[in-house]
Amino acid sequence: MPLPDAEIDALLDAWPVARLATSAPDGRPHLVPIVFARSGGALWSPIDGKPKRSAALARVRNIERDARVALLLDHYDAEWSRLWWIRVDGRASLVGGDASAEAALRAKYPQYRSVPLYAGEPRLLRIGCERVTSWSAGAQPVARTEI
Amino acid sequence: MPLPDAEIDALLDAWPVARLATSAPDGRPHLVPIVFARSGGALWSPIDGKPKRSAALARVRNIERDARVALLLDHYDAEWSRLWWIRVDGRASLVGGDASAEAALRAKYPQYRSVPLYAGEPRLLRIGCERVTSWSAGAQPVARTEI
Repeated sequence: MPLPDAEIDALLDAWPVARLATSAPDGRPHLVPIVFARSGGALWSPIDGKPKRSAALARVRNIERDARVALLLDHYDAEWSRLWWIRVDGRASLVGGDASAEAALRAKYPQYRSVPLYAGEPRLLRIGCERVTSWSAGAQPVARTEI
Repeated sequence: MPLPDAEIDALLDAWPVARLATSAPDGRPHLVPIVFARSGGALWSPIDGKPKRSAALARVRNIERDARVALLLDHYDAEWSRLWWIRVDGRASLVGGDASAEAALRAKYPQYRSVPLYAGEPRLLRIGCERVTSWSAGAQPVARTEI
């Protein structure tokens, strides 16, 4: 069954990690974990100072060609009645700094006190939500307190 | 830096959850969490008895049109030096029962003692690996013991 709207809202604000799917130029799906924060009705993920496999990030190249993305928040638990996921289908764009988004990211992730918010010049993925789909296995609100 | 091969091998065997990206007929990426087990050099994920949003699964419809998939195993940790991910790019096909894969799934997931391994007739996604990419933030082998 779907998650209650209030829970989706709380999880989009507080869940620490999501997986971002984009389409590569050849149409193959590409997948990477990201951190993100919500601000101004969108989700934002910085091209931050965590070490990267490559300076020319596939996620950036991909959304420049096809802006359509899927973002998945989910919880795995050995107790399968506690499983849930939220999928956001949307469109991503690459933008320079955004003060509100930066504040939201720094408030959500104290790690940015030591890790640079940006690797080089300010770059953020802005993900506008077009559709939110959710699923949970349990009949009752379950422990999502591990946020 | 990449993970050591031996760690990739161990994680592909034991990590309990992955996120599967497929391409929808309109080219949009689609994303869902899956359980999986390794058997015979491939990764297998059953269309199992966990409740589903819909009987006509998007992941099945998608791979029938475009077999190319990406699978992501990753660990989020508030200590960012412990982050890692493994991405498998491959091709998926839908197959009927496979005795070895079923045994591997039942061995990996005791949950299948109570949850049916199949929702209806036997159907498994078989994901053949074409390329494995990995990344880890840390300079040293980190705690991947939470498996």
